[in-house]
Amino acid sequence: MAANKYVFNFQEGNLGMKRLLGGKGANLAEMTVVGLPVPPGFTVTTDACRAYYNALSLPDGLMKEVANGVKGIELQKSQLFGNAEDPLLVSVRSGSVSSMPGMMDTILNLGLTDITVVGLAKATNNVSFAYDCYRRLIQMFGNVVFGIESIYFEKLLHQLKRELQVEQDQDVTAEGWKQLILQFKACIERHARKSFPQDVNDQLKLAIEAVFRSWNNHRAQVYRRINQIPDEQGTAVNIQAMVFGNLGQDCGTGVLFTRNPSTGAKVLFGEYLTNAQGEDVVAGVRTPLPINELQKEMPEVYSRLVSIAEQLELHYRDMQDIEFTVEKNKLYMLQTRNGKRTAQAALKIGVDLVRENIISVEEALQRVEVSHLDMLLHPTIDPEAKIDVVATGLPASPGAASGQAVFDADTAEQCARAGKKVILVRSETNPEDIHGVLVAEGVLTSRGGMTSHAAVIARGMGKPCVCGCDEIGVDAEAKQFTAGDRTINEGDWISIDGATGRVIIGMVQLKEADMSEELVQMLEWADGVRQLQVFANADSPEDAAKARELGAQGIGLCRTEHMFMSAQRLPIVQAMILAESLVERQSALNKLLPMQQADFEGIFTAMAGLPVTIRLLDPPLHEFLPNLEDLVSRHIRMTIQETERSAEQDALEKLIRKVRSMHETNPMLGQRGCRLGILFPEIYEMQIEAIFRAVLRCLEKGVTVLPEIMIPLVSHANELKILRELVDHVAEQVLLTHKNSCPYKVGTMIEVPRAALTAKKIAPYADFFSFGTNDLTQMTFGYSRDDAEGKFLTQYVDQKLLAANPFQVLDRDGVGQLIELAVERGRSVKPKLKTGICGEHGGERESIFFCHETGLNYVSCSPYRVPLARIAAAQAKLVLGDQKIAIMPIVS
Amino acid sequence: MAANKYVFNFQEGNLGMKRLLGGKGANLAEMTVVGLPVPPGFTVTTDACRAYYNALSLPDGLMKEVANGVKGIELQKSQLFGNAEDPLLVSVRSGSVSSMPGMMDTILNLGLTDITVVGLAKATNNVSFAYDCYRRLIQMFGNVVFGIESIYFEKLLHQLKRELQVEQDQDVTAEGWKQLILQFKACIERHARKSFPQDVNDQLKLAIEAVFRSWNNHRAQVYRRINQIPDEQGTAVNIQAMVFGNLGQDCGTGVLFTRNPSTGAKVLFGEYLTNAQGEDVVAGVRTPLPINELQKEMPEVYSRLVSIAEQLELHYRDMQDIEFTVEKNKLYMLQTRNGKRTAQAALKIGVDLVRENIISVEEALQRVEVSHLDMLLHPTIDPEAKIDVVATGLPASPGAASGQAVFDADTAEQCARAGKKVILVRSETNPEDIHGVLVAEGVLTSRGGMTSHAAVIARGMGKPCVCGCDEIGVDAEAKQFTAGDRTINEGDWISIDGATGRVIIGMVQLKEADMSEELVQMLEWADGVRQLQVFANADSPEDAAKARELGAQGIGLCRTEHMFMSAQRLPIVQAMILAESLVERQSALNKLLPMQQADFEGIFTAMAGLPVTIRLLDPPLHEFLPNLEDLVSRHIRMTIQETERSAEQDALEKLIRKVRSMHETNPMLGQRGCRLGILFPEIYEMQIEAIFRAVLRCLEKGVTVLPEIMIPLVSHANELKILRELVDHVAEQVLLTHKNSCPYKVGTMIEVPRAALTAKKIAPYADFFSFGTNDLTQMTFGYSRDDAEGKFLTQYVDQKLLAANPFQVLDRDGVGQLIELAVERGRSVKPKLKTGICGEHGGERESIFFCHETGLNYVSCSPYRVPLARIAAAQAKLVLGDQKIAIMPIVS
Repeated sequence: MAANKYVFNFQEGNLGMKRLLGGKGANLAEMTVVGLPVPPGFTVTTDACRAYYNALSLPDGLMKEVANGVKGIELQKSQLFGNAEDPLLVSVRSGSVSSMPGMMDTILNLGLTDITVVGLAKATNNVSFAYDCYRRLIQMFGNVVFGIESIYFEKLLHQLKRELQVEQDQDVTAEGWKQLILQFKACIERHARKSFPQDVNDQLKLAIEAVFRSWNNHRAQVYRRINQIPDEQGTAVNIQAMVFGNLGQDCGTGVLFTRNPSTGAKVLFGEYLTNAQGEDVVAGVRTPLPINELQKEMPEVYSRLVSIAEQLELHYRDMQDIEFTVEKNKLYMLQTRNGKRTAQAALKIGVDLVRENIISVEEALQRVEVSHLDMLLHPTIDPEAKIDVVATGLPASPGAASGQAVFDADTAEQCARAGKKVILVRSETNPEDIHGVLVAEGVLTSRGGMTSHAAVIARGMGKPCVCGCDEIGVDAEAKQFTAGDRTINEGDWISIDGATGRVIIGMVQLKEADMSEELVQMLEWADGVRQLQVFANADSPEDAAKARELGAQGIGLCRTEHMFMSAQRLPIVQAMILAESLVERQSALNKLLPMQQADFEGIFTAMAGLPVTIRLLDPPLHEFLPNLEDLVSRHIRMTIQETERSAEQDALEKLIRKVRSMHETNPMLGQRGCRLGILFPEIYEMQIEAIFRAVLRCLEKGVTVLPEIMIPLVSHANELKILRELVDHVAEQVLLTHKNSCPYKVGTMIEVPRAALTAKKIAPYADFFSFGTNDLTQMTFGYSRDDAEGKFLTQYVDQKLLAANPFQVLDRDGVGQLIELAVERGRSVKPKLKTGICGEHGGERESIFFCHETGLNYVSCSPYRVPLARIAAAQAKLVLGDQKIAIMPIVS
Repeated sequence: MAANKYVFNFQEGNLGMKRLLGGKGANLAEMTVVGLPVPPGFTVTTDACRAYYNALSLPDGLMKEVANGVKGIELQKSQLFGNAEDPLLVSVRSGSVSSMPGMMDTILNLGLTDITVVGLAKATNNVSFAYDCYRRLIQMFGNVVFGIESIYFEKLLHQLKRELQVEQDQDVTAEGWKQLILQFKACIERHARKSFPQDVNDQLKLAIEAVFRSWNNHRAQVYRRINQIPDEQGTAVNIQAMVFGNLGQDCGTGVLFTRNPSTGAKVLFGEYLTNAQGEDVVAGVRTPLPINELQKEMPEVYSRLVSIAEQLELHYRDMQDIEFTVEKNKLYMLQTRNGKRTAQAALKIGVDLVRENIISVEEALQRVEVSHLDMLLHPTIDPEAKIDVVATGLPASPGAASGQAVFDADTAEQCARAGKKVILVRSETNPEDIHGVLVAEGVLTSRGGMTSHAAVIARGMGKPCVCGCDEIGVDAEAKQFTAGDRTINEGDWISIDGATGRVIIGMVQLKEADMSEELVQMLEWADGVRQLQVFANADSPEDAAKARELGAQGIGLCRTEHMFMSAQRLPIVQAMILAESLVERQSALNKLLPMQQADFEGIFTAMAGLPVTIRLLDPPLHEFLPNLEDLVSRHIRMTIQETERSAEQDALEKLIRKVRSMHETNPMLGQRGCRLGILFPEIYEMQIEAIFRAVLRCLEKGVTVLPEIMIPLVSHANELKILRELVDHVAEQVLLTHKNSCPYKVGTMIEVPRAALTAKKIAPYADFFSFGTNDLTQMTFGYSRDDAEGKFLTQYVDQKLLAANPFQVLDRDGVGQLIELAVERGRSVKPKLKTGICGEHGGERESIFFCHETGLNYVSCSPYRVPLARIAAAQAKLVLGDQKIAIMPIVS
């Protein structure tokens, strides 16, 4: 292709040239080549757009190519551009590579001037129509080329109609339009200090430039940022002969989907208007008719349309969204593209196309938009329901829920015990709130980002969550929150929609999610293709059961600390932490042991026959203690108000001293994870004992158990060495005492950079590596997630300093490099080392692709993300080919 | 060497066999081979010790080899082991590879039994001597072999002397000793339920085993841990014919240094006792005579000794510490070893030996114990002074200081302004205390480890610091601290010794440090050898001048935040942080600008002609704000006590809200470093402007300036890209406005793992990489230094889970790997990239070796560590050879 060919006639292009011609241009070319009735035209390429932005003017020679393009149209239409008798009119439309509907500008009827408008009137024998076209051109041109806000033109039109005492545009007379045209021209001169050009080639040049400029208008920029469309892509410009659906009753225009975009059902779906232009359908002034009415009104056109629709679907091998115009009984195709559809429709269409032998299973799988799956698996608000939205926060965990507002975890628990449904409302949550989150239908916070504590926990539990909703003001002491001028008190019903971030007053009708037959089919196909295994993160028997139902092949991360958080257990945990002696601590641990054992038994039973990876206690112990600031406040009040020193005061002071002594400047990097296990072996010992006692119970009941014990936060091989010995020792004691045995694994989280770097030394002590990508991201970047999100990290992503939030999409360059290196080094000493990730990235498509590419054995994600991960894993295999290493059996 | 040869006669060994024979054994062999009069003997190897620990019994065949060894001694001494007439007696001494003085056990006079003692009495014609020898053997044997505490034997001896009414051991009669021998034997039977063996070979076997066992006694284990001696080294056992210095006036024993170990002066130095055993010299019962007295008493022996001393020094090419015994006018050499010496003596001896052509410059350099240099450069407590030590803490920053105790930074500053000398006493310090540390003579804290905030800051400023002194209780509110039953109030004089951790009541006499001629010489030699450049970390003109005086070749790290901390500036800094608008912030910044400019001007002037690396603001802004807990306490008090709402209350609440909003969970990983520069470009802009205005002023004064601007905490190349543009932009504006120019560099700290991993992408924007090994260690290990030290990290080092504290000695496996990788990748795109480290490791020998090995261009450390670093850098070159890459000129 010549470097400086900037213009392609529709006959010259095809669908494969999308990058150069934009989506619309490539589609028009494809349809033209296939022989469909497309009005003639040509496309100015995205190369020209880039050249325009480089030089800030149209590239040399472009307008000459454009003139040749116009000549081509003139030949086909037997009309001349700018001709006074029967002028050729064209539309000038943007057409980007990625779909950006409505973001850029369009000009219709270009080619009309004071002279040619007379010719058009004659040729169409419709003066009013011609001048209406002309005034539309001037208005669009003024807006798009000269940047004059439409409102000025609208006002003039409105005024005119008032003067003429008419309601509808179509009732305005030719004279009226002529008068308006004068006013429009004056308006342009007033605002832009320029005249509406009377040279059609000037019109064309200015219009092309304006479309290029519109690539960088504000709304287009925002759209690109949100949809991660590169700025360098640029837009093409399509110049096409006008056809008119509004020349009489033998004319019309419409939109057609080849299948139902809402359900996916295989029926034609669409609507049309006679004697109308496309914008009239959109504007909603007249109500369009369902497409099958066309069969009666224009039977020939309809049957041609049906056959073209079929042809297009077969040609594009997907459901099409078609725009057409009928000009004097002649059908013209203006656009076709793969139709947007709901998540459910997408699945149904995918499965149906396979069954109709139009596409292969592999293609169907690749077409699944995994991010849409979330919507299918969580309850949603019935779209028919009337709802009272009072605020919008971040859509942190999908699904919708209704409940009575409560403002602390304890109340949440009490209400839940009394059978009430509650929504936990907090300014932000911390681990002490977990027992509240556990029982709530959903969580609403006024602070914190998409990966704040509340969001992470809620997603993990599959509970709806709206967070960072700064439109509401939460007053936990007063047990109320405000939204605008509304005050919501404890006990008031509210609803949240975690998929959109909406906060709603009152109870709303929910639609329960269930796995459609098509989803089940698609997942089955995915399972047949994928090499990555999909595990789930689950901390309770209920979560485990849900995960299994959604197809998890095991538990990749069971966080034992969540089991410490229930209101019933927390006092014992606190007693354990505050113990002054080993004996005291042991006594508290002895109370916790049977509780943990019961937890594990439940999870093992739910996952019978599948591996369950249990992570030993991870968070710093002070997370289980009361808040220091609260204690100090209480103490000051007590000191000021009480005259005599009380025993309570002594106890409080002792508690404050202890809490203060355990305070950490950077708890993320403090005394947590395996460091606890080294310092307080008795805690890990209790947990290990609980695990193996649960194993014993399951064995007695005939339940197959595959326990895997995971040591968190290892940074030096010696830590794992010591703790592995502890596991082996306790396991032997518990199992041998009962003359039983059970194969188990001991492995480690790789979540500290040093662990990844020294994987070769760590691997000898590990049966598996599970990459804790949340913490690994924190330490590799030096980002505290709690402090970064909503603060500098948000700005970094907005400024495009970072391509994506690394807590959402795994950072390949840094974190990914460490993972690759750890896998390679670990396997260099232990070729069959099992590897996987258990951070939140395990449920994110791009990250799953990375895991496939890096040769990991599994990803582990929250239960509700399991289906997504199953499909993404299959897509990874289809896109990237076989994994670098052979996949291990689940059980080895 | 045969695998199972466990015994070497002294004639078979030499100094090179230290690993096998231990230090003492190798030395005895070397002296024997050289022809010196060494009592005959042999060594049981460290191999045998390891074999003993593997099998927990002496290896097969060992005792046969020992018997052969004994035969060799018998031949030379013409005596027989266990012979009833003239028995051979031997000593059994431990001898480890690394010197562990007094840590393990010794048995003398072995070979005495109820029968041979009679022979000894006859042969020496001295019954009392013989039985004294015997009772000594039994006591030592009982203690060493049977583990009976010496106190039991001492008590019996004491009782005997009381009965006999004698004061001195030598006055005890033979009958007395015989009686005591019976009691000693009974004591052994009572405590060990075993008899003292009458078979001399049993004695020998048991003694060898006991010495091997003593390798693992508690004090030896502790000593090894402190001195980082590997457990696997094991000890050798030396068996040697006894010689007696206590057989009459023609006998004696003594110790001799070939040079003065305290000053290094080239004179014989030592002392001796006639008619005495070695232990009598140590015990101090009689006062030994200076060695030159021996010339009068035994002129021949003396002249032989002098010539042997000379021979030994030349042979060993170092100052020797010699033990000798004279038995009936015959001189025996019992030991020689390189003598311990003071830091100053070591330098003098090193330089003198070079000047005497005994060793080369390179050898002299390699012999410098760099850790001793610290002592030479800081004022020390006059050893003559009488001092009242009340507590001992961690020796956190060397040097001694006296001053009046003050308990907060503001008081410190007021006192200092009034010309008083103060010691700042805190339970722990934080960045808000810096202006107090700045003016104090020294710092004392009751909490925090060797790398706590106080310690780091004090070391950086070269101020004495004792920290983690938990023997004292600091009550800042009452303005006092307690130590034991003493209370020290504000204004009381105290002294601290940062080299030993001593806390002293009252003022003490200090000895000012000055660079001795020998130190200057040694440093000059080092400069001629080393390839690494040595820069200093300095934040003020004074520090810069000191650094330059101590030989720094530039400033590698100038921390601008310390300039924000003075009492005068802090309110402006706080106003800047709390600003509600950009205008407000700009106004505060405008006030700070001239202050920063003056700082930079001073530093540039002090370092004229040398590079000055200035790091832009790094710590999180909330570090400059008041403590939240204090504010909240104040607020609660105000709320309770005031009846009407005051303006003060409003202001306080506003402040609390702001401080709370800036609170971070993990400030180490929060909004700091270049993240501030991206979010608040106006702050960095002010700093950059201040730098270049200072540059201008210097240029006007004719001062050569080499500014290097360093961007902290970069984790993504884009951060550096953006901020480099900012630097270039501001520099151009300031310099061009004044039609001036100045070459400058822009570089980055590499202190986030991701920066190291992505060095290839960062290097294009960096003129230099400066590894911030403090933070890099924190993030690579996932250790918060503030939380780890004194907590789990201390235990990790104690448990030997980690070989060393990674904040003191650079962790090669993890952190080092990242540095290597970053250097390699950075230079792959920019071959001349300047690299160095500026963490505390820059002043630590092992870490400096790593830097040399990795091909860094420089290390930067606190000014007082510069001489140490200069020598260590030379040693690195001598030990490791040339650097991997060519060294760059300082200015490029």
